[in-house]
Amino acid sequence: MVVESREWVLSAYVPQGVPTSEHLKLNTVTLKLDSDSIPDRHIAVQLLWLSIDPYLRTRMSGHQDGLYFPQFELNQAVTGFGVARVIRSKNSSYIEGDIILNPFCPVAEYCIIQPSDFLRKVDPDAGVPLPDYLCSLGVPGFSAWVGIEVLGNPKPGENVFISAAAGGVGMFAGQLAKIKGCRVVGSTGSDEKVKLLKEEFGYDDAFNYNTETDFDAALSKYFPTGIDIYLENVGGKMLEAVLNHVNKRARIPVCGMISQYNQVWSEREGVRNLLNMVGKEVRMEGYLVGSYINRFGDFAKEMESYIKQGKISSKHKIYNGIESFLESLASLFSSSNVGKVVIQVKQEMEA
Amino acid sequence: MVVESREWVLSAYVPQGVPTSEHLKLNTVTLKLDSDSIPDRHIAVQLLWLSIDPYLRTRMSGHQDGLYFPQFELNQAVTGFGVARVIRSKNSSYIEGDIILNPFCPVAEYCIIQPSDFLRKVDPDAGVPLPDYLCSLGVPGFSAWVGIEVLGNPKPGENVFISAAAGGVGMFAGQLAKIKGCRVVGSTGSDEKVKLLKEEFGYDDAFNYNTETDFDAALSKYFPTGIDIYLENVGGKMLEAVLNHVNKRARIPVCGMISQYNQVWSEREGVRNLLNMVGKEVRMEGYLVGSYINRFGDFAKEMESYIKQGKISSKHKIYNGIESFLESLASLFSSSNVGKVVIQVKQEMEA
Repeated sequence: MVVESREWVLSAYVPQGVPTSEHLKLNTVTLKLDSDSIPDRHIAVQLLWLSIDPYLRTRMSGHQDGLYFPQFELNQAVTGFGVARVIRSKNSSYIEGDIILNPFCPVAEYCIIQPSDFLRKVDPDAGVPLPDYLCSLGVPGFSAWVGIEVLGNPKPGENVFISAAAGGVGMFAGQLAKIKGCRVVGSTGSDEKVKLLKEEFGYDDAFNYNTETDFDAALSKYFPTGIDIYLENVGGKMLEAVLNHVNKRARIPVCGMISQYNQVWSEREGVRNLLNMVGKEVRMEGYLVGSYINRFGDFAKEMESYIKQGKISSKHKIYNGIESFLESLASLFSSSNVGKVVIQVKQEMEA
Repeated sequence: MVVESREWVLSAYVPQGVPTSEHLKLNTVTLKLDSDSIPDRHIAVQLLWLSIDPYLRTRMSGHQDGLYFPQFELNQAVTGFGVARVIRSKNSSYIEGDIILNPFCPVAEYCIIQPSDFLRKVDPDAGVPLPDYLCSLGVPGFSAWVGIEVLGNPKPGENVFISAAAGGVGMFAGQLAKIKGCRVVGSTGSDEKVKLLKEEFGYDDAFNYNTETDFDAALSKYFPTGIDIYLENVGGKMLEAVLNHVNKRARIPVCGMISQYNQVWSEREGVRNLLNMVGKEVRMEGYLVGSYINRFGDFAKEMESYIKQGKISSKHKIYNGIESFLESLASLFSSSNVGKVVIQVKQEMEA
């Protein structure tokens, strides 16, 4: 069996700005998938769903500071979190038809990989729609859970602020904080998403940072008694504004800083009021969900229970076909999406 | 009994720069200290020693952001941490001759106060020289202990960086980290102090930030394997440089940010690379020692034991007479001091 497989290759690093077709090329390669062509212990997989996340951008800058995820290699297919189907196996742990979750899946319609510890097999009897593994029960849901429940340590009645609140992490973070009895306010990029946060995700309030551009005034208005937990997804000016409204012993779990990803660091606007962290004894802590993987079972059990009880809503923005990778990635930086961005690489009916 | 008492009064707030005689006036007041003039439950005290600390500056800015200590009131005597002798008492818990520690002592040669929970009586049999209560066994020693031992959680072999390393907090912080088996490097403002850190306080290495002004290059040189704990005393550019050299799960206890105190916050240079906190999962936490007062007993026991074993050295810079308040305060911002700055308000022999 021979397939034509399209894959996205990084041809040049992107020091600043949004990646374009100058940096990412859609190539077509021919793959032989007969038994002789697949090495021992390897499997051939077909990509079904791909998660599109802001951190992908941070692997394309080419900055050699080494302080974030390692940079993608040039002239190789980039990777992302994917759901794939095994179509050939020369590994005794996998059979044809298995559905796998792969955090470092090449962004390619087909590929041959050697299974690693990172792979997880989906239980076909769980009845979970596949995109949910990239969403409520995947990295965004887990990121929200670690930020709010592990690092945020929310107490009933506390005031919680979520930035990028209608994004993949934000939508779950707000709902988890509400379940814990907190008052929750979010910032997001459109009036439509403000409405969604309040009506669909149960936020107590929300504002559009593109129209309420004086963040300090907005936070005075929405947090008259201050902020106890800020789940940081954007950085820059929003963080600076938050630090003028923190309560004693506020917690700031730092999930990401999307406002910073398209700039070289020396040109970023700095945060000038970190001194407020002393007077208010604020704890700010960066995290990567991979470090909390020993808690994934606790998370999955809790989240599944909330989903069954109808306590968690979820929105996906679905792009179709692997050719939409560049467009879907750029969309993360334009306030245009609602919910978690995913690509349906292959229609499930045909898969 | 009537005394002439000189006291320092704040006549104008200091929005930026170092306080001068335009802002702080040395007034002389006449105090009646006979029994009829002292209210019930009050005591009259004579100030012996006064601690001069960077945080005092933050109480003089007049900024109403309310995020640090409350601002001093205009046309009132400012306050600081003092050692004083009771000279008259109408409070049954105090007798003439008692030596007290007062964290909010008016900067005045004499005053009449109502004792509060903040006061602590010195045990005259402890044999501790009085300035040590403002130093190794006082707020600077306790600040160092909370930063290094409580928040820093040092492990043998870890790399520890201390800024303002020859200052009141820094000199103890480095010694405590050495006792815990860490490798310790400090930054300080003169070659003389670099020498002192290495020869007197046991630092493994140290550099002069006034001559090695490329902090990023300096940290590359002194921390080839990265920084695990940074005790933050200065903020601004130094913090930014540190964030380019942090190791995975580094801890940054924030004791203060002296580089920021003389500027209005909107004119401060911001920190542009907080994103590094995500990739390295850094925890940065501001603290005020008052919040750890329940650990003061543990601290005092441990520190006294180290002092008896000769494991802790200490330097004071002593100014003489209450008239030196303005000069001694300004000296904190000029790299000119070694060790903890105190004023000997009254010679002990005469007291």
